[in-house]
Amino acid sequence: MSFSQPFLLQRRLAAEAVLREAGKRAQQRFVSRAFEIEEKGIQDFVSEVDRQTEAFIRESLTTLFPDDTVLGEENGGTVGNRAWIVDPIDGTTNFVRGIPFWCLSAGLVIDGVPAVGVIYDPCRDEMFCAHKGGGTMLNGMAVRTSSTSDPTRAILSVGFNFKAPVERHLSVLAGLFAAGAVYRMPGAGALALAHVAAGRFDGFWEAFIHPWDVAAGLVLVTEAGGIVSDYPLNDGLHTGSPILASTPGMAEFFTALTCGAVEGG
Amino acid sequence: MSFSQPFLLQRRLAAEAVLREAGKRAQQRFVSRAFEIEEKGIQDFVSEVDRQTEAFIRESLTTLFPDDTVLGEENGGTVGNRAWIVDPIDGTTNFVRGIPFWCLSAGLVIDGVPAVGVIYDPCRDEMFCAHKGGGTMLNGMAVRTSSTSDPTRAILSVGFNFKAPVERHLSVLAGLFAAGAVYRMPGAGALALAHVAAGRFDGFWEAFIHPWDVAAGLVLVTEAGGIVSDYPLNDGLHTGSPILASTPGMAEFFTALTCGAVEGG
Repeated sequence: MSFSQPFLLQRRLAAEAVLREAGKRAQQRFVSRAFEIEEKGIQDFVSEVDRQTEAFIRESLTTLFPDDTVLGEENGGTVGNRAWIVDPIDGTTNFVRGIPFWCLSAGLVIDGVPAVGVIYDPCRDEMFCAHKGGGTMLNGMAVRTSSTSDPTRAILSVGFNFKAPVERHLSVLAGLFAAGAVYRMPGAGALALAHVAAGRFDGFWEAFIHPWDVAAGLVLVTEAGGIVSDYPLNDGLHTGSPILASTPGMAEFFTALTCGAVEGG
Repeated sequence: MSFSQPFLLQRRLAAEAVLREAGKRAQQRFVSRAFEIEEKGIQDFVSEVDRQTEAFIRESLTTLFPDDTVLGEENGGTVGNRAWIVDPIDGTTNFVRGIPFWCLSAGLVIDGVPAVGVIYDPCRDEMFCAHKGGGTMLNGMAVRTSSTSDPTRAILSVGFNFKAPVERHLSVLAGLFAAGAVYRMPGAGALALAHVAAGRFDGFWEAFIHPWDVAAGLVLVTEAGGIVSDYPLNDGLHTGSPILASTPGMAEFFTALTCGAVEGG
């Protein structure tokens, strides 16, 4: 029942509408540059826009779906059998600095299975969405992961967090270069996952990433034909885990590269 | 005479108009995804959009300023005393893959001195421009480099090219992490320089970059109050050189970091 297409589609469409409205508001603040910033840790910032955006998304989803629970990056929450996992602003540092690469992300996890994913990029007005069994869409058009299978044509998007060993990060980059592959480091993991789903990057890897950064992106990538590593979405919600998402033709290469790095790191 | 404000302003305004029109055309192709691609080398691509965009810019600038010479990435040219150095599409790989971070760049070099710089980002409709003595503008508003002076709040944008040793690249990243700084790797050097000028990144470094990637950006950064390393613009136009551009408060740190990497690389 919970995985029926009408059920999932209803929630996907609702999340799209909520994220679009929340995103337009956030975009106004991004342009005006009028907001307060706090530092949560080294190179870890939060702005009042994060908090206000999360509050808006939480209130909207709770009103629409009172039986669903909501977990957000900034204000916590509990994970029930049917839980929205929300990152109000993924790429907060970019947002704060005026770098136009950030997004809003909401994923619905049902009994531990990522079932709906919606990611909105207000700067480009790009709405990425998917629900289990329904494929992945970008602004209403179906998208697929790339057909890349040659490392010398591959681009891996990476994320970085001081909570993982820097050696691991550097050894993955070294392995990429040795194979003739290149990388991008755009600074917003959820949006990078959406770009993997749309075939723009051939993969995304980060050694330590939080559930709210990946909950929606996992659905986008798998429904677009890509392959994702196991990620604990119901367990240790405040602990980061490694994530690898890739297009099928690069999955073996990227897995060997990043698992080798994990062992050696 | 050549550096008089009316002289430089006339050329800056003309280059803005030319790049805006060329950029709108390229943007249509970017959205439609309808273009042929050739591989120039490993992870080095050129599309027919690069060639057509360069031809349009060259013809426009030559018509407007018959006594100026034009050097472009794709079709070469000679460097006279007053030379436009043009990158029709900076970030070609991003363009080809649908990643919305690329730009058009045109810099005017007079007697070896970068005098006018114009960079246009069609995806965001952002026009960055500067002329010597006139300050730097983004869509008509004055911009400045950032006030960052603390590495734990700094973002260095980096570029990568297989023509420079990968160890140099990795050692710069390692040095950044050791100081608590972070990095971005967006994949378009000219646009990254424009973002340094606008205070979004605190610096940009690449071990091997071509003149057409930096000719405009050097003017944007210096006129916005930033500091740039010496770069040979009249010499070895087809040979890459290292470039460092930074906000004043981070210049000493980034210089030590990247010069150390050069010696150790």
